[in-house]
Amino acid sequence: MKAYALLGGPTELWPEDIEEKLAQADLVIGVDRGALFLEELGIIPDVAVGDFDSLHENDLSQIESNVQDIRYSNPVKDWTDSELMLQIAFEDYHVDELVIFGATGGRLDHFLINLLMLLNPEMRLYAKKVTLIDQQNLICFFNAGTHVVQKRKNYSYIGFAALKAIEDFNIIGARYELKHYSGNYPRVFSSNEFLPNSNEFRISLQNGMIAAIYSKDINRFHDL
Amino acid sequence: MKAYALLGGPTELWPEDIEEKLAQADLVIGVDRGALFLEELGIIPDVAVGDFDSLHENDLSQIESNVQDIRYSNPVKDWTDSELMLQIAFEDYHVDELVIFGATGGRLDHFLINLLMLLNPEMRLYAKKVTLIDQQNLICFFNAGTHVVQKRKNYSYIGFAALKAIEDFNIIGARYELKHYSGNYPRVFSSNEFLPNSNEFRISLQNGMIAAIYSKDINRFHDL
Repeated sequence: MKAYALLGGPTELWPEDIEEKLAQADLVIGVDRGALFLEELGIIPDVAVGDFDSLHENDLSQIESNVQDIRYSNPVKDWTDSELMLQIAFEDYHVDELVIFGATGGRLDHFLINLLMLLNPEMRLYAKKVTLIDQQNLICFFNAGTHVVQKRKNYSYIGFAALKAIEDFNIIGARYELKHYSGNYPRVFSSNEFLPNSNEFRISLQNGMIAAIYSKDINRFHDL
Repeated sequence: MKAYALLGGPTELWPEDIEEKLAQADLVIGVDRGALFLEELGIIPDVAVGDFDSLHENDLSQIESNVQDIRYSNPVKDWTDSELMLQIAFEDYHVDELVIFGATGGRLDHFLINLLMLLNPEMRLYAKKVTLIDQQNLICFFNAGTHVVQKRKNYSYIGFAALKAIEDFNIIGARYELKHYSGNYPRVFSSNEFLPNSNEFRISLQNGMIAAIYSKDINRFHDL
């Protein structure tokens, strides 16, 4: 089962094909303001999660009358809304794959919560099933082990971020190779590329967590 | 001496008062495409840093003819352009304070490089002198010790991100207090606030690095 979740980040950063993607979902989850954004797109989420404290009362009433499964989070709590969403998706709905939109931009404490949530030992096993996508980036996660990194259409670059201390990190068969890197703090290895005519390469790590960040340049209008 | 640096991130995320701020600088540094953005604003940077490989030849020629101090970075290198910029600002120009624009958004591997660059032991001593500012966020950095966190005008929230393993982190006198938190991976404590009628509170940590993320909600037009 493939699930899509929409979080409350800026709508300007949504990928262009978000509506098409959401239409293919087996399960749609709206997190906080993301639940409202879904309704505005004409999609009733299967699950809504959040404290909803940023919503107007009538917007919340609409969600409460439409959505079958509503989970109210506690604003003073141990788990963030994003962590609660992971638990619901993987423990209650047993999804095989979760794609998250609306996780980037805006308030950067919110973005970092979404980027780092899989480091929580209770969430770590979900890492390989989670992807964050925005207009310009696609982020997926790797625990310790050896992994094949697949080329993805339309992304020119791939960077790797060690999200915590890491042991024996290797990049094998990419444009820039890396051998036996260990470090006790997060570090980014950016702007790698697939070799010409190659659709994959390998990475391995003994310990730690890697975020693979696929990215592309986009043409922006800038008004100076 | 107060320096401002402009990096190549999306111009849509610049703070509104960027031109006013740049006009007050003792030293202006343009990093890669940021050097071109400065020229487009009518400001000739004192220093330009980068490999400039994303610039058109005539844009680079213009920078080369205008800018007094140009530092070419090596695309296959140990230091990122952002790290090189820190070295130049603090070692060569002895600046007391460095404010960085254009560090957020766009390609997220680039943003993470800018967020995490101060973890590099060679850069760590500069942490307290560096601030990243975009349209909605202001980020400053704290090494081990006890620190007074000052309220800043127009920012409603403050979150704290442990950027690496942390020992005995405390938040004292804020709306949400935290006592003796230690953890071996990065974690975010978001959405804290100053107490009413209070302009400061304290944080302390034995070991690690904290990014303080001041943020505000902004009204966004969203076209659904």
